[in-house]
Amino acid sequence: MHVKILGSAAGGGFPQWNCACPNCRLVRSGKFPGKARSQAQVAVSEDGKSWFLLGASPDLRSQIEATPELQPRDGTNNSPLSGVVLASADLDHVLGLLLLRELQPLNVYATGSVTRLLREQNSMFAMLNRAPDQVRWRAMRVEESFQLCTLSGQHTGITCTSIPISNRYPVYASNSDPALSPDEALVGLILTSDSGRKMVYAPAVASITQSLREWLEKADLLLFDGTFYSDDELTTVRGSGELAREMGHIPVGGEDGSLRQLAGLRIPRKLYIHINNTNPMLNETSPEYRAVREAGWELAEDGWQATL
Amino acid sequence: MHVKILGSAAGGGFPQWNCACPNCRLVRSGKFPGKARSQAQVAVSEDGKSWFLLGASPDLRSQIEATPELQPRDGTNNSPLSGVVLASADLDHVLGLLLLRELQPLNVYATGSVTRLLREQNSMFAMLNRAPDQVRWRAMRVEESFQLCTLSGQHTGITCTSIPISNRYPVYASNSDPALSPDEALVGLILTSDSGRKMVYAPAVASITQSLREWLEKADLLLFDGTFYSDDELTTVRGSGELAREMGHIPVGGEDGSLRQLAGLRIPRKLYIHINNTNPMLNETSPEYRAVREAGWELAEDGWQATL
Repeated sequence: MHVKILGSAAGGGFPQWNCACPNCRLVRSGKFPGKARSQAQVAVSEDGKSWFLLGASPDLRSQIEATPELQPRDGTNNSPLSGVVLASADLDHVLGLLLLRELQPLNVYATGSVTRLLREQNSMFAMLNRAPDQVRWRAMRVEESFQLCTLSGQHTGITCTSIPISNRYPVYASNSDPALSPDEALVGLILTSDSGRKMVYAPAVASITQSLREWLEKADLLLFDGTFYSDDELTTVRGSGELAREMGHIPVGGEDGSLRQLAGLRIPRKLYIHINNTNPMLNETSPEYRAVREAGWELAEDGWQATL
Repeated sequence: MHVKILGSAAGGGFPQWNCACPNCRLVRSGKFPGKARSQAQVAVSEDGKSWFLLGASPDLRSQIEATPELQPRDGTNNSPLSGVVLASADLDHVLGLLLLRELQPLNVYATGSVTRLLREQNSMFAMLNRAPDQVRWRAMRVEESFQLCTLSGQHTGITCTSIPISNRYPVYASNSDPALSPDEALVGLILTSDSGRKMVYAPAVASITQSLREWLEKADLLLFDGTFYSDDELTTVRGSGELAREMGHIPVGGEDGSLRQLAGLRIPRKLYIHINNTNPMLNETSPEYRAVREAGWELAEDGWQATL
C-alpha cells in the first residue's frame, strides 16, 4: 500500500492567515527551524494507479498540483482519484470536496450522519451531483469493513474499517438534530491491504479508547493526532480560547498525553499529523520536538511517503 | 487606491485538478508559453493598511501567504483585512470566506439574497459567527453607494456601488426560492476613491447592459470577464458541456464578443480576469493572445498591482 502525506497541519495550516504568533512570524520570515505545512491530507493506493483521499482538505488544489501521481494523464475529467473517505464533517476535512466539483465521477464514503450534514444542511454540496454520473455517496457503517472500490466497482486491494473516536460534531452542526448519531461524528480509519499491512489514520482523537488501542497494536503505520502539545497551548499563545481536550484533541505531552499513553506500543512507524500552528514541536530545536523524536515518533511533513 | 490581483483564473484555477487539456498538460510540464494562475481574487486599499477583498476565492490561504501586505504584523487574530465585498454566491467567489473563520472580526458586504443563500442554506457559514464579535454581515443594496468601513466604522476612502449584471444564481441555489431577487444574483462592483479614481470589477458578465457601459466610460481601471475566448470553447476542448453564454459569460472574441463590443471605450487600463483553463489566450504565442494585446487589453496575472 502506497501512502502519501499531502498536508500535515491542523485547520488553517502553518502559517495561519491571521496569526503572527512566534511560530507563524518566524516561518513567514524564512528563519524558522522547521517547515511550513498545508492542511492535513493523506492519499493511499494499492496499485499506484487508483488513489483514495482520506478527507478532502481546503488546500487540495495545490496539494494535487504538488503530487504528479494524482494528476490526470490525458483528456478532461480523467483523474486518477477514485474516491474520498471522510472521517468527520470538520471544515478542514471536507471543504476540499467542493474543489472536486468539476463533473468528476468519485466514490465518497461517509457515515450517514456526516453525509446528512453535508448534503441536507449545505446546499453547495449539490454541485457534486449536477451530472447524473458524478459523486456516488456510499454509506460507511462504523465498525464494519468495506472495500475501497474503483468507479466500475472493482476492489482496489484496500479494505477500510471505521471506528468511533469522538461523539463531537463540528460547531456548525445543529446539536438538536436527532438524526445525527453520536457514534458517527468522528471516526478513525483503519486501512488494510490485501497482503495484511495496516495503517491507522486518526488525526483527531478525544481519548484513546480500548477499541482504538487494539487496532493500534496491529498497525504497521500510525498517523495520529498531533494538534496540540499541551492542553493549555491555545490559551497561552492567544490569551484566550479553549483547552485542547475541550476541542476534542488529546495533547501530545504531559502526564496523560498521547506520548505517555502510547509509549508501550511497538508500532514500526508512527507520525504525528494535523499539527496546529501554535504547537512548539514544529520548531526542530525545541525540547518538545526532541521529546517526540526520542520516543520514536516522526512529525508528518507535506510530501512524506511510504510503501507498506 | 491600491489594487492587487491575487488570483486571475476562473473556478478551478489553471491548471485545473482533473484536466489534462493541452493548456493544462503543458503548464504542468513547465513548457507552456504562459503562466499558471490561481482562482480570481482582487484586494483593494486606499491607505495600504486596511484592505478589502473583492470576493473570497478558494485559494485565499496561499494567496494571502504570497502577499505580505495582507499578513498580520503581530499578535493573533490581527489581520490587516477589514472586510470582503461579494459580487455573487458562486463557489469560486465565496468558498474562501470559510477559510477566514479563525475568530477574525470582518465586515462582509453582500446583497440580501446572496447572504440568505450562504447563511440560511449552508450551515457551515455559522463558523463565521461562533464568537459575538466575528463577521458582521452588511446589506448591500444594488445601485446604492456605500462606504467601505473599518471594523470601528471609519470610512477608508473607498466608496462601492454594485450594479446588477446577471439574474443567474449558482446551480446549487434553489431556483424555487421566491426570496431570491433576480437583481441580486450577480453584480458588478464599482470602487471609487475619495479622489475620484474609479475601478470596475466584473469577473462574470452575461451581457453588457447600458448601465454597465455608462460606468465603463468613467473607469480608470477595468477588470473584465475573460472566462472564455469563444462561445463553444468548452464543448470543443471537452467534447461536451455548455456554451459560454449559457453559463453567463460573454466570450472575448467573435462578432459579438467583448473585444468588439468594448472597442470604442477609452479606458486607461483594461484587463481580462477570471480566465478559464481552456482559454487559448492564456498561450502567449497564440493569435488570440495577440488579438487581445493589440486591442489594448492586458491579461490579469497573479501578483499584478497598480495604484490609481
